Amino acid sequence: MTREPTTAPTVVAFPDRLAAAVERARSQLVVGLDPRVDLLPVELRGEAAAGGAAAAAAVERFCRGIVDAVGPYVVAVKPQAAYFEALGADGWAALDAVCTYARESGLLVIVDAKRGDIGSTARAYASAFLEPRGARPPLADALTASPLLGRDSVEPFLAACRRHGAGLFLLVHTSNAGAADVQEVTLSDGRPLWRHVADLVAEWGEDLVGECGLSSVGAVVGATYPRVVGDARRAMPQAVILLPGVGAQGASPADVARAFTSGPASALVTVSRSVIYAYRDRDDDWRAAAGAEAARLAAATRAASGW
Amino acid sequence: MTREPTTAPTVVAFPDRLAAAVERARSQLVVGLDPRVDLLPVELRGEAAAGGAAAAAAVERFCRGIVDAVGPYVVAVKPQAAYFEALGADGWAALDAVCTYARESGLLVIVDAKRGDIGSTARAYASAFLEPRGARPPLADALTASPLLGRDSVEPFLAACRRHGAGLFLLVHTSNAGAADVQEVTLSDGRPLWRHVADLVAEWGEDLVGECGLSSVGAVVGATYPRVVGDARRAMPQAVILLPGVGAQGASPADVARAFTSGPASALVTVSRSVIYAYRDRDDDWRAAAGAEAARLAAATRAASGW
Repeated sequence: MTREPTTAPTVVAFPDRLAAAVERARSQLVVGLDPRVDLLPVELRGEAAAGGAAAAAAVERFCRGIVDAVGPYVVAVKPQAAYFEALGADGWAALDAVCTYARESGLLVIVDAKRGDIGSTARAYASAFLEPRGARPPLADALTASPLLGRDSVEPFLAACRRHGAGLFLLVHTSNAGAADVQEVTLSDGRPLWRHVADLVAEWGEDLVGECGLSSVGAVVGATYPRVVGDARRAMPQAVILLPGVGAQGASPADVARAFTSGPASALVTVSRSVIYAYRDRDDDWRAAAGAEAARLAAATRAASGW
Repeated sequence: MTREPTTAPTVVAFPDRLAAAVERARSQLVVGLDPRVDLLPVELRGEAAAGGAAAAAAVERFCRGIVDAVGPYVVAVKPQAAYFEALGADGWAALDAVCTYARESGLLVIVDAKRGDIGSTARAYASAFLEPRGARPPLADALTASPLLGRDSVEPFLAACRRHGAGLFLLVHTSNAGAADVQEVTLSDGRPLWRHVADLVAEWGEDLVGECGLSSVGAVVGATYPRVVGDARRAMPQAVILLPGVGAQGASPADVARAFTSGPASALVTVSRSVIYAYRDRDDDWRAAAGAEAARLAAATRAASGW
């Protein structure tokens, strides 16, 4: 009689979960949840003005409403940790509730927190965001992180990719003007710093490639730098590229077409303000406005990607 | 009859508050609060094992005990956000409580969170950590942050320095081995990347110099790279240098003597694990062990600094 070895429950790599979700949703769009209290719809702003727990409750209701409205058109939501932290412990509870709600709605959750620290501390961040919490699932499916502290600082996140099917998006070239100050300095071999970082991202993700051919280690590349997007794609052929900068920051889906040459799930367009606050430019309910803008951007992205 | 213009309450610049505190405490030591649940003293570990709110309560009791024990020997404490975030909303509430307790004990609070994001998001982080929260004071006196996203990403923190007397410590050269992967790449002018970042830090802090001659914009430089410490001092003569890496990471106070050439408050030695878990190597109460180790390191630092 032979005994089967005890096997861990099957872990599906993040890029494979993502590729299936992209296929299912017919969308490569991610909506960023950046809940600024002063930009909430009037019906929630009054509640939020009381501050403290009331503000966090208003933010949570707003984010749930956005999840409902954009859910049919997106593959994931991307809560921005900063806006929740600005509301203290109540804000963190709201972040937790919103992540749970989005996942229960069938969406992937990418928490945008841009964490990065030495290994012992990075382990705590991995535990906060990417590891099961007792009987509860991880807060997020994937996390944005900084590569500035190097390989050992990223290792705990890679371990979470390996063990728990988590995903990681490392900052390669951000969407803001200040990106030039550090990320574009010229190295001794003539390349800008971000190209060196792109090579590290490709290397760190090499042994975390899923069945779909994409890696659990992705990259953040600002859509506001279209030439960088193409170069980044070539430097990191197996990385899922997360593309902020479309919408309020000025880029269009056409600017990022080159990111999709590794397949429909090889890039994600992430839009925040221009979707969640779309109601400010229209005479429409805030949920309806967000849904309409998400639908429009999902279609434009699909078209630009040649899917 | 002349009317006095309405003036804002006087804001004392962070470096001036720091210099006064260093003088008063006769210490340039900062103790890092990195509360790992599995390393808590036995009397707290049982409570913590229940997880959730009980774990956060145990962490809070531990940190309060450490604040009491090391208070007479340090100028500040440095809570590491990651360990609190790993406990969710309850952990964030514990972080808030510990920061409040430390400040009420007369210590400065430097939250180690290494935040960095584009301007609109950085404003939320500045609000979370460095700005008054309604009637409550800011969570922290100072914050560690990443320079990777450039000037516009740092601007909201600089505004908090200007308006609220906050302090900022930007990552210039971290203490870990992986620091070499990105921070030490060679630029076209032959310098390592971190030297370029040091120049940016000096420039960004130029118009935020206090009466003591030091700037509100400081730098993190790992004590584990003693040659870097000396070069960093020369590149940023007005920056307060926060020096991690002494103790568990292997450096000694003597390794950082060169950081203090701009005055007794121009550098801070920050020690975490080797102080807060000192009880693990001694047959002593955890508070007494932490206090004794802090006293020893404060004296060694004072001697190394030539004060």
